[in-house]
Amino acid sequence: MTMTDPAQQETLGDLLAAGAPHVNADLDRWLVEPRVPQTLADGMRYCTRGGKRLRPAMVGLAAEACEGSVDAEPVRRAAVAVEMIHAYSLVHDDLPAMDDDALRRGQPTAHVKFGEAMAILIGDALLTRALGLLAATPAPTAGRLAAELATGAGPAGMVGGQVADMDLCDLPPGREGLQYTHRRKTGALLRAAARMGAVAAEASQADLAAVTGYAEHIGLAFQVIDDVLDATGTAKQLGKTPGKDVEAGKRTYVTELGQNAAGELSDRLTREALDALQPLGSRGTRLAALACRLCQRTH
Amino acid sequence: MTMTDPAQQETLGDLLAAGAPHVNADLDRWLVEPRVPQTLADGMRYCTRGGKRLRPAMVGLAAEACEGSVDAEPVRRAAVAVEMIHAYSLVHDDLPAMDDDALRRGQPTAHVKFGEAMAILIGDALLTRALGLLAATPAPTAGRLAAELATGAGPAGMVGGQVADMDLCDLPPGREGLQYTHRRKTGALLRAAARMGAVAAEASQADLAAVTGYAEHIGLAFQVIDDVLDATGTAKQLGKTPGKDVEAGKRTYVTELGQNAAGELSDRLTREALDALQPLGSRGTRLAALACRLCQRTH
Repeated sequence: MTMTDPAQQETLGDLLAAGAPHVNADLDRWLVEPRVPQTLADGMRYCTRGGKRLRPAMVGLAAEACEGSVDAEPVRRAAVAVEMIHAYSLVHDDLPAMDDDALRRGQPTAHVKFGEAMAILIGDALLTRALGLLAATPAPTAGRLAAELATGAGPAGMVGGQVADMDLCDLPPGREGLQYTHRRKTGALLRAAARMGAVAAEASQADLAAVTGYAEHIGLAFQVIDDVLDATGTAKQLGKTPGKDVEAGKRTYVTELGQNAAGELSDRLTREALDALQPLGSRGTRLAALACRLCQRTH
Repeated sequence: MTMTDPAQQETLGDLLAAGAPHVNADLDRWLVEPRVPQTLADGMRYCTRGGKRLRPAMVGLAAEACEGSVDAEPVRRAAVAVEMIHAYSLVHDDLPAMDDDALRRGQPTAHVKFGEAMAILIGDALLTRALGLLAATPAPTAGRLAAELATGAGPAGMVGGQVADMDLCDLPPGREGLQYTHRRKTGALLRAAARMGAVAAEASQADLAAVTGYAEHIGLAFQVIDDVLDATGTAKQLGKTPGKDVEAGKRTYVTELGQNAAGELSDRLTREALDALQPLGSRGTRLAALACRLCQRTH
């Protein structure tokens, strides 16, 4: 793509690490409260290992873009909480009644490892703990942070997106239906991550609006790129079997638009994400770099 | 039982109605946000119909005992939220991988009515919405309320109790193991309900401690009485098949202690609940009456 790349020296890995430097240590510290049954605590730990930590990094980079710090406790709690929500969603999505997946990040999925009842309960535990951890943030923004995350994760956000993705509700035809689904299924949680970073940093309304607009475009671009990679990538690049969505008869941006137009759409959405950052000036550099790296990714 | 009954004129039904007069109207208003897929909204409504509304009433009566009002918005949000949590727990507990129940309150359970995937998602939606609704309370107590509910509902509370109840973790033998389970499975949410009422009423530390102690004893008494009724009640009285727990090989207070000692235990726990209310003086009258009515119930 032709857009100017604002932070050419940083790789995607650099940016993710810079945005969420504490996430693993904080998960160790905050994931499990006292008096949790040992087997449940073990399950919660198992299901939060690994992954790219994109959502925590979005929290931290959005906070920095709004003159906050990734070291501040509200930012750190929000980073951990959004990752716990992401983890719970994978555990429930993998269940036999849902996508019925046996492997996740190269390891047995929760229900394969711990049984189906325990997997349901691990998911419930991660979800409840995530929102409780945020609500107990020692800052006046506690309630607002938890409310942002619940909106992104809940029935009008991620859960609603999963309902749409599993054909459990009526959808508009074509690209509009895809947008309905992905705005909720992937987009809503990325949006909440960015907004929580801004809220934790006590951002101005203008800064909050800028990162919100950015995240909404990134969320859709992310999904379009996923669909393109699913159609063009190799198993080795993706770490999973390509073409699975199409084989399962799912509508994707590639089946709806064709591969070229889908690629152009992801470029356009990425440019719109960068445009949304303009009010932040140079503070938006790393968020812009993240958008470019996500658009260029091959897995 | 021989204890003095402090509010002889009010039945259990009167007390429940007095504690949560707005719960049905507030559920209509707050259960479903804009932009929730229609089928998911319908499922959420289906799963929150009916029931005794004991937990919302506990919120309201605790608030009143702490000089709050059942009409205040934080109290009303807490009442609705705790009922949504209760509803979600029933939906997930009824799933085939859990208790595999086909009927609930005389109606088909969620997975029978909507399918298993949708039932999982309805539960996730109710849980997330409950905590989000509280976190968005327009009052400085918003974060604290959501944190109380998450603690009661989460891995150290209700979810942990369900893990214990399903034999998915090690437990101490005998009565201690039963207490470990029920303190979490039933007790933790009743405790959270009472504490939320106190917190929403901006109670003093002493008043908060009084309603907390009360609710902890009530929570255990409630379960002991359930076990006694399960052993002695008729299907008509209970509205469900008696003896199901014992048939399933579950330990109950009756199998552990015998029927007489279990009855004595529930009386003792109820008296201890009343004792805990003493610091509240006459403000504790209705909570005391609720304890007595719950102890006398036949279903």
